[in-house]
Amino acid sequence: MASGPGFSDEKNETLCESESTVYVHNPHLDGMKDDFLYHFNLGTSTHNLPAMFGDVKFVCVGGSPWRMKSFIEYIAGELSLEDPKAEYPNICAGTDRYAMYKIGPVLSVSHGMGIPSIAIMLHELIKLLYHARCTDVTIVRIGTSGGLGLEPGTVVVTKQSVDATFLPRLEQVILGNTVVRSTDLHQGLAEELLQCSKDLGQFETVIGNTMCTMDFYEGQARLDGAFCSYTEKEKQDYLTKAYESGVRNIEMESSVFAAMCQLSGLKAAVVCVTLLDRQKGDQLNSSHEVLHSYQQRPQILVGHLIKKMLQASASSRS
Amino acid sequence: MASGPGFSDEKNETLCESESTVYVHNPHLDGMKDDFLYHFNLGTSTHNLPAMFGDVKFVCVGGSPWRMKSFIEYIAGELSLEDPKAEYPNICAGTDRYAMYKIGPVLSVSHGMGIPSIAIMLHELIKLLYHARCTDVTIVRIGTSGGLGLEPGTVVVTKQSVDATFLPRLEQVILGNTVVRSTDLHQGLAEELLQCSKDLGQFETVIGNTMCTMDFYEGQARLDGAFCSYTEKEKQDYLTKAYESGVRNIEMESSVFAAMCQLSGLKAAVVCVTLLDRQKGDQLNSSHEVLHSYQQRPQILVGHLIKKMLQASASSRS
Repeated sequence: MASGPGFSDEKNETLCESESTVYVHNPHLDGMKDDFLYHFNLGTSTHNLPAMFGDVKFVCVGGSPWRMKSFIEYIAGELSLEDPKAEYPNICAGTDRYAMYKIGPVLSVSHGMGIPSIAIMLHELIKLLYHARCTDVTIVRIGTSGGLGLEPGTVVVTKQSVDATFLPRLEQVILGNTVVRSTDLHQGLAEELLQCSKDLGQFETVIGNTMCTMDFYEGQARLDGAFCSYTEKEKQDYLTKAYESGVRNIEMESSVFAAMCQLSGLKAAVVCVTLLDRQKGDQLNSSHEVLHSYQQRPQILVGHLIKKMLQASASSRS
Repeated sequence: MASGPGFSDEKNETLCESESTVYVHNPHLDGMKDDFLYHFNLGTSTHNLPAMFGDVKFVCVGGSPWRMKSFIEYIAGELSLEDPKAEYPNICAGTDRYAMYKIGPVLSVSHGMGIPSIAIMLHELIKLLYHARCTDVTIVRIGTSGGLGLEPGTVVVTKQSVDATFLPRLEQVILGNTVVRSTDLHQGLAEELLQCSKDLGQFETVIGNTMCTMDFYEGQARLDGAFCSYTEKEKQDYLTKAYESGVRNIEMESSVFAAMCQLSGLKAAVVCVTLLDRQKGDQLNSSHEVLHSYQQRPQILVGHLIKKMLQASASSRS
């Protein structure tokens, strides 16, 4: 097992810095006549990507297409950019792999469930931002998760994404060899999101580690999957060890999101609400209304961050 | 690294055998008052699962919700079960995680992209078939893939699903420990599908190994992702090694599909069309019409299989 290729030395330590481009790290791209982003159904020869996306400053991604549409409607209202006649069309309408919406400088994209699904989307998103010559892009994953030792509804901003053995790394297989990539996220952005939650005063938010697993049932020590070969006590012991290592929530996309955003120089954060306390149960059987209200919390938090960053950017220009 | 728990000794060696139930392997399930299949938005206390699904004999799964709706419309026509007024409602309409359609004994379910996404769906599908007391269920994944040494449009029926080092296994992390599961598929069913292709005479079909990867770009040696740290020659050497080991196509779900179906005693096959020859390129830039016609081939093949099995079952009863 070798270390991953060190594509980038850039570190984005502050929120206010000089203009930075989104970086791909692929010498082959320059030699391609055109680039078709298959799973978005968008391409450099069929779409004017700089005209469509050149002004993007914030990208918000999440698993569910419905939630990402709801986010763009919410943010349009928050930024007073809503058009009562507008339908917020799905920019990727020619495919059902992902859904994409845009309003002003904000792009909202769905990514499905699990590391492979979000990785395909991020490869194409990073190339899209590169082709569109975007600069200074902030990206946030908003999602749902299982919590550890937290009241359901608590929002967790990820400090580090860790694997199922509580280590901050992503193993990736390239040409049959395993490379290990770092899963650090932008600490300044995480602190800013915590401050946003204090500004709002509407719900509890904490910073903690997020465990990213390859499976929702056996991979997260659930007792209610089709297969289970361990006892309730073994489950509890594992979750206790996770808690003691600093894990506060469990989901399925943060590690590759952190690794790919770090490689590409995107300022990135992960904001997930906890739908239940996994030390108290496995099934998601809260009412639809309760779960729906929890799911709005990450978007409220990120909406507040976007407004604050746009106001800071406007006042620094005036 | 330890071997996985040997849940099942069942082997389904023939297509015609005595009635067999779909098996979960989880002692905790019997103690649960009810079971909510969260990602389907279906549950034992809210739905009469035996009444809704008890007659299911064939399950067809695929990545795209649109394709799985198109499959149910196609199979309704093939089985002369179509209702001109029917809309084939999405049974999982209350969620956007998966889409599910049913006509007669055939269930069609989408699974998104990648191992984690299909694994969540399969956990809940296997529990659904168990709660519904289904017997003798055959399941086929229909999908798209990159081919090796095959004309684009060739259909590959999977012999064994192999990992990125060409080994027929799935590594799964449970309570932080890696277990290894077998990825064998039902050989009799694969042979029957090959025979169906000969009956039809419409397109080329081969039996070969399928490489299942965790990533579409770097994980499949593509040169057109956001990141690429290898040369064209290194890509070609890797794909040549894959071909020499018996790999004929590459996709992202077959290994966990094979492992979970084997554990649960479901007769399973994987049928994927190749959209391009990966030794000749990476980008999917064939016309929409060509790609669409390729994508219909697995559903035509599986449609023929279902008709043939239903006819055999009817004549054995008469």
